[in-house]
Amino acid sequence: MPNQATDLGRVFQALADPTRRAVLERLASGPAAMSDLAQPFRMALPSFAQHLDVLEDCGLVRSSKEGRVRTYRIAPQAMKAAEGWLAKQRALWARRLDQLDDYLKEQKR
Amino acid sequence: MPNQATDLGRVFQALADPTRRAVLERLASGPAAMSDLAQPFRMALPSFAQHLDVLEDCGLVRSSKEGRVRTYRIAPQAMKAAEGWLAKQRALWARRLDQLDDYLKEQKR
Repeated sequence: MPNQATDLGRVFQALADPTRRAVLERLASGPAAMSDLAQPFRMALPSFAQHLDVLEDCGLVRSSKEGRVRTYRIAPQAMKAAEGWLAKQRALWARRLDQLDDYLKEQKR
Repeated sequence: MPNQATDLGRVFQALADPTRRAVLERLASGPAAMSDLAQPFRMALPSFAQHLDVLEDCGLVRSSKEGRVRTYRIAPQAMKAAEGWLAKQRALWARRLDQLDDYLKEQKR
């Protein structure tokens, strides 16, 4: 990845939208064609296709075309990167709290 | 939380911005005053304060005021919710791949 900060920003931006999160939730249970993915949404197909493009551009999904059918699937790496960033900040914060706790115990003695 | 989907959307939206992610990275190593947080950024204080408001509104940070100093700290629950959502989708997808793998092995026999 040439610019991980930008990539992470694009992943979080993609995840901020409820339609795109719903698509990822659907794809988590298996690959699906664009028309099947679009079906539950009251949305014109071109607008829906834009959401899929955003997901694919930031690496959250991949697609392949066979004949006239484009099939989408989860690409777990980008999700893992976002999850990893969050986990890291939480771990640092938890460690900081532990250190504070140790310090306070030390002071009590 | 009255509407978890909306909350999750706001958390991811907040995380999409590099300044806000940098603030969270800073806060992961301990609480800090607004002026200290603002210092590394070439940004007018009111603009910077808006970023802090976004982080606080979606629950990623908390603040408290003592005298004239407002201090910010990480509020890990919102981060945990976002992380949990990502982990869940990845786990579902991994299970799906395992099932597919089992099926293919079964077919080979």
